Amino acid sequence: MYLFPKPPREEENVKYASPDEIKLAIEELRAALPGPNAVATDPDTLRTHGFSENSYHPSSPHSVVVRPTCTDDVVKIVNISRKYRMPITPYSGATSLEGHTSGHPSGSICLDMSGMDQILQINEADSDLICQSGARWEDINATLKEKGIPLFFPLDPGPGATIGGMIGTGCSGTNAVRYGTARAEWFLNLTAVLPNGEVIKTRRRARKSAAGFDTTKLFIGAEGTLGIVTEVTLRLAPVVPTKVAMAQFPDVEQAVSAVQEILNSPYASHIQCVELLDDHMMEAINTAGLVDHPYPVEDTLFFKLQGDAPSIKNASKTVRDIVKKHGSSRFEFAATDQEAEDLWQNRKYALMSTLAATPGTRCWTTDVCVPVSRLPQLVYETKRDLLDSGLGSTIVGHVGDGNFHALILFRDDKELEAVGKAVHRLVHRAIALDGTCTGEHGVGVGKKEYLIDELGEGTVELMRVIKRAIDPYDLMNPGKLYPEKRKPDAEGPSS
Amino acid sequence: MYLFPKPPREEENVKYASPDEIKLAIEELRAALPGPNAVATDPDTLRTHGFSENSYHPSSPHSVVVRPTCTDDVVKIVNISRKYRMPITPYSGATSLEGHTSGHPSGSICLDMSGMDQILQINEADSDLICQSGARWEDINATLKEKGIPLFFPLDPGPGATIGGMIGTGCSGTNAVRYGTARAEWFLNLTAVLPNGEVIKTRRRARKSAAGFDTTKLFIGAEGTLGIVTEVTLRLAPVVPTKVAMAQFPDVEQAVSAVQEILNSPYASHIQCVELLDDHMMEAINTAGLVDHPYPVEDTLFFKLQGDAPSIKNASKTVRDIVKKHGSSRFEFAATDQEAEDLWQNRKYALMSTLAATPGTRCWTTDVCVPVSRLPQLVYETKRDLLDSGLGSTIVGHVGDGNFHALILFRDDKELEAVGKAVHRLVHRAIALDGTCTGEHGVGVGKKEYLIDELGEGTVELMRVIKRAIDPYDLMNPGKLYPEKRKPDAEGPSS
Repeated sequence: MYLFPKPPREEENVKYASPDEIKLAIEELRAALPGPNAVATDPDTLRTHGFSENSYHPSSPHSVVVRPTCTDDVVKIVNISRKYRMPITPYSGATSLEGHTSGHPSGSICLDMSGMDQILQINEADSDLICQSGARWEDINATLKEKGIPLFFPLDPGPGATIGGMIGTGCSGTNAVRYGTARAEWFLNLTAVLPNGEVIKTRRRARKSAAGFDTTKLFIGAEGTLGIVTEVTLRLAPVVPTKVAMAQFPDVEQAVSAVQEILNSPYASHIQCVELLDDHMMEAINTAGLVDHPYPVEDTLFFKLQGDAPSIKNASKTVRDIVKKHGSSRFEFAATDQEAEDLWQNRKYALMSTLAATPGTRCWTTDVCVPVSRLPQLVYETKRDLLDSGLGSTIVGHVGDGNFHALILFRDDKELEAVGKAVHRLVHRAIALDGTCTGEHGVGVGKKEYLIDELGEGTVELMRVIKRAIDPYDLMNPGKLYPEKRKPDAEGPSS
Repeated sequence: MYLFPKPPREEENVKYASPDEIKLAIEELRAALPGPNAVATDPDTLRTHGFSENSYHPSSPHSVVVRPTCTDDVVKIVNISRKYRMPITPYSGATSLEGHTSGHPSGSICLDMSGMDQILQINEADSDLICQSGARWEDINATLKEKGIPLFFPLDPGPGATIGGMIGTGCSGTNAVRYGTARAEWFLNLTAVLPNGEVIKTRRRARKSAAGFDTTKLFIGAEGTLGIVTEVTLRLAPVVPTKVAMAQFPDVEQAVSAVQEILNSPYASHIQCVELLDDHMMEAINTAGLVDHPYPVEDTLFFKLQGDAPSIKNASKTVRDIVKKHGSSRFEFAATDQEAEDLWQNRKYALMSTLAATPGTRCWTTDVCVPVSRLPQLVYETKRDLLDSGLGSTIVGHVGDGNFHALILFRDDKELEAVGKAVHRLVHRAIALDGTCTGEHGVGVGKKEYLIDELGEGTVELMRVIKRAIDPYDLMNPGKLYPEKRKPDAEGPSS
């Protein structure tokens, strides 16, 4: 019989484990997970799991890092977390940018899923695959390639990201123009451990279902706050031949208007990716010495076109005509596969190039997303703001989706503070343009304060109501995703 | 300040309005909605809104039918429903097949959204459109065409369906092979009236967002049980030229293996639809007199291919080679646009042809969905079962998704009972093959009993927990979607 714990009465505050209870919980974790390295408490491990190199939000070290190998291990850990009221934070690829994996100040269990990285079943005829949630998307695609299976998983966030983290963050990546995001239908079925210790499967393996509302989607973007995803059925797509091209423009506005026309044309389905790299980013790539021949320093679009040779030929003719009409001085294909790969790597390693071009700096990466038609205004105003603030930056964006990343450089705490303020202004600018505080990086700690401005108190309270119903003791990654209430809530029903 | 009503204590039963309270509620509805025809209580209207021609599940007439014209009207109605504890059932295209719109035995407000059918804004540059939820998908596409905007909304369930119903049911249709379902990213943002009367927007207009878990998806497939959707931002796709083709096969197994190979090839993105019509369905089309020249009576695939002329040429060559390899005796294109349209209409009006071919019968339509590789077994066993049961039937299916519709004929109550039993066996067969009790028709009243077998008690209880948290008085379309508990729940937390 399935039971959700009753929520604590509203007047009670949730109380987390005391230091003594934390010690008992760790002992119990050691007994439950006897494997070598399954339970770690050395300060280095606690610190590296609690802090991220990529984000500058307040954090604490975890109390203990546990490394499950199967769903049953996760059930044991969740039950111990509930018994001692000790918060639990899932962790896997550690590529997140908004403090998703930071420790809880009252002590926390870091659930390191990176060892649960097995592919369990490949169903080529049904274009699907079952894996553990710690598997990396790049490893999954490499395995399919090695086995000669002409399918791939198309969501491609940052290098090193795992399936579980991609689900938690509601990720996307450069392929989203053609294949959509984590919120589309790529995750067919999840196995999840709920806060009450129950293991559920959200669906069966059929490619679609109308049997109830979509509990799979509930976990996508929930950042580990509603339960722990342990296994996943992924839908795969056929591998299609691609070619890489670039076009350069006098300004972002013309680049974006070209993209809009291309994506509203019948050739849209041949456009796998359209990436914008601003003039600073192109300069950084040149300076970082990643290319043999420097590119002209202009706002640039990188395209990945897909299809058989005749389709690509037709699609490229259309793309060439459209970009020329919108003022592009230069449109060219990568001449060889190697050149195509190099060109694309320049985009994927934008952060590395940005840092390499300006030694001695660190970088705050942030993302927002707006309707595509609003992107030129957003880019223009943001670049002006960063210039006025005296901050170095590069801009890259999944321009086909209106998703925009700013990589802002700083050298010291004073500049870091200025970056924080510039990010704050950028987010408000995006929301004012009918956009979102994050297109794909997620909320974590860093974007919490913006959710109410973006969505309204009612929508955020709907999220909180669901969170409280599923996790009444607030044990699953507390302190992330849900912003604090602005005023204390009055009691009693509204009717 | 936003408040969700506190849930009633578990030991209290939800109590709905008494007959006297219903009278008061109706008076209050009349005062709140003074427009002509805004509030109807004539027996004909109550009956036609409470019963469906297309389903044979137990139903009751509604107590009152209300016709809002805007979100504010819906708020008033929801508040009156809550004040008097009177259940509310949304209604729009009335094409549903599982009793979704049937009345509640204790009396109910039928919320007829079909008058809220306005297109409010078209953003061509951003490929999106804002409309009221009573708009029909066919009208939206006709409007875009009239205005010369080369975009369309690709979800295409049964003729007459509205956007609100499509959201509620988690619909799909013939285009799902290429464009996915209602659970993908076609609904960008919903305006919804929650059970507490609060109006929320689930997102802004950016094409993607990672700001919190996906409250848009919460309403998709919820069948009006979590709130009333009043306005919607739809994402649109570019219109692409299409051609229609058909291929005939000695049996379903060979037809399906051909489809699998095609959909795993790099040409998959040119396949907009692949529809299976079994030999009985082809015979019905011939008999119904819908075609000038009768088709050979064989299991048949109808294809819609999309792309520019050279792409379609290449894709058709691949399709022709693959179907031939899998035993197809015949592959041909519609010679003219008119022929293509006629051919496709034969598929879209399968129900009409099935009935027209056997005068004096009625028809129970049901759908299930399985992994594509399991479809031949499902079709084979189901046809044998229906034959053994002496029931006439046709089969059509979105074979590219493993989604399968049986249209089973009956003449009288005795045959109706046999049909009900055959549907029951079909559903269990689909679940045993790792499939779902419904691929796109939804749960309503008709499929409730299968959810626990398909998903497990834990997943269903997760749905119930969310339902109770959002709608503690169980006023939103009660009696649908969520199956009754098998045993009464014990009390107290599980830990």
